[in-house]
Amino acid sequence: MPASFRVFDEGEISAAATLSAASLAIIEHAFSALAEGRVIMPAPLGLHIKEDKVDGEVHVKTAYIRGSKGFAVKVATGFYQNARLGLPTSSGMILYLDSQTGQVVALFADNGYLTDLRTALAGAVAAKHLAPMRVRTVGIVGTGIQARWQLRAIALVRKVRQVLVFGRNAAATEAYIREMQIMVSADIRRAVTVSELVRQSDLVVTTTPSREALIKAQDLHAGLHITAMGSDGPAKRELESNVLDQADVVVCDSYDQCLRLGELQHTALPRASVIELGELTSGMREGRSNDHQISVCDLTGTGVQDSAIAEYAFLALRQRGTKHS
Amino acid sequence: MPASFRVFDEGEISAAATLSAASLAIIEHAFSALAEGRVIMPAPLGLHIKEDKVDGEVHVKTAYIRGSKGFAVKVATGFYQNARLGLPTSSGMILYLDSQTGQVVALFADNGYLTDLRTALAGAVAAKHLAPMRVRTVGIVGTGIQARWQLRAIALVRKVRQVLVFGRNAAATEAYIREMQIMVSADIRRAVTVSELVRQSDLVVTTTPSREALIKAQDLHAGLHITAMGSDGPAKRELESNVLDQADVVVCDSYDQCLRLGELQHTALPRASVIELGELTSGMREGRSNDHQISVCDLTGTGVQDSAIAEYAFLALRQRGTKHS
Repeated sequence: MPASFRVFDEGEISAAATLSAASLAIIEHAFSALAEGRVIMPAPLGLHIKEDKVDGEVHVKTAYIRGSKGFAVKVATGFYQNARLGLPTSSGMILYLDSQTGQVVALFADNGYLTDLRTALAGAVAAKHLAPMRVRTVGIVGTGIQARWQLRAIALVRKVRQVLVFGRNAAATEAYIREMQIMVSADIRRAVTVSELVRQSDLVVTTTPSREALIKAQDLHAGLHITAMGSDGPAKRELESNVLDQADVVVCDSYDQCLRLGELQHTALPRASVIELGELTSGMREGRSNDHQISVCDLTGTGVQDSAIAEYAFLALRQRGTKHS
Repeated sequence: MPASFRVFDEGEISAAATLSAASLAIIEHAFSALAEGRVIMPAPLGLHIKEDKVDGEVHVKTAYIRGSKGFAVKVATGFYQNARLGLPTSSGMILYLDSQTGQVVALFADNGYLTDLRTALAGAVAAKHLAPMRVRTVGIVGTGIQARWQLRAIALVRKVRQVLVFGRNAAATEAYIREMQIMVSADIRRAVTVSELVRQSDLVVTTTPSREALIKAQDLHAGLHITAMGSDGPAKRELESNVLDQADVVVCDSYDQCLRLGELQHTALPRASVIELGELTSGMREGRSNDHQISVCDLTGTGVQDSAIAEYAFLALRQRGTKHS
């Protein structure tokens, strides 16, 4: 009989694995390992189910970081007609396996919590390495779950004083403002247009599932950094192609993946002119060279983040287990 | 919160999901669905970990059979240095997801039990459709787990009277004979060579991880059927290429997959001259037309079998749950 495995639910996981300097460092290291060629990361497996009343997709991601104790196999689902049934669109779980033996060590039934966490941390890594040192105003486009996570993640790496938020739904935007004002203790106001938000912010994060460009090149200004994390599939986009063309610095999490799934799919930027996030975290390449440049970071979410956050969560959960027993 | 899921262990699963006419019919239907184009089955995801003291691989298979209530995502591992640690080489588990919502309904922590079962059932399907109606002697090459499963599976579809078994290890072969004599109540004897076994059998199943041909064309004879289920990876093989070339009927579970992983990788047989198992079960094509022909079936194991057996197991477990509560 193989060794038994532990099942952790979202409550336990979210209590142990949090936005912190420690989890930030782990995601930074994961990106560095990727850039340094110390990661084996096959292309994700995708299954699409399209029936009369079903429009679903399943994605399986995995990656092994050389020298790490474990790695994740993440099964993530998106079933876009679930709302009709009163169910969340996204689901799935993460298996955490021992790198030496292949045995399943833990099952994280996290309802996507660790994906949210590692996605937010990638935003923090981007802001840390690309935003101007002094950020006066943060602009958040979108009012959903990642709109919340990304703002909290930025607070790990920059002092957040003023925030502008743009949402198409007024009630959702007000709810966002009430909730986040307490969470990050900043002055948060609603922007009437995305243009206004971009013009008045030094650091903008776009968090929507948009299929048309929300940010126009005409609103770019000196010293602006934009992280676009919404696009994660063919035909999705949040930025005009000109935004990437006119930026001084273009960064992404994985060039190959962003070409298929991210903002890069709408541009013709060659590999050499795009920096991978891990090239910044490892010091292989430089990001912005002054606070007047314009930078953009395109994030699609990678298997190496899943493996890194799973290892972090497992160690954090084990530590809590030890404390309490 | 999404609906909760059930975790089933090997003991529960093996008590509910068994070799039976019902499970055989389910695997036959799965192959028929595949041949009829009613299955979405992406190529498996593979991750290989090769370190100083580690030689491991992870494979993720999935498939959706149109109209079915659920589908499997199976994570299977093979870590070939585990024996040194006193651990089994193979591990993994199956997630069973709802086809309408993508929610995980059940986790089968089965230690490979359902893979063994669906693999054995594919052997039974092959024997049912390809072996001569009257089998005097069954020959089993290998004395491992599938050598046991395959013999029991054949007993579902043919009367088993005499069995010859070939194993390189005498003690393991004796243990096989003692155990299986009770299990299938047949006369089981040891073959000294594979040649002798093939010459004296009407139905041969090869179940080894061999990398060289065990069965030679010179031993083929009228009325013989061979199922080769050992090869499931590049460079593996159990049959001489001439065995396939000289057979009257060549069948496989999935042509594309067998070209990469099975006996077909060592031949140049065009698609048109190879029958897929589902083309037999669905009646689209004919297998042997008389009891004098020689037939061969190449099995590598497919995601559609995993989804079919997972659905069967889930229903069987739920039925037992109802009975006992």
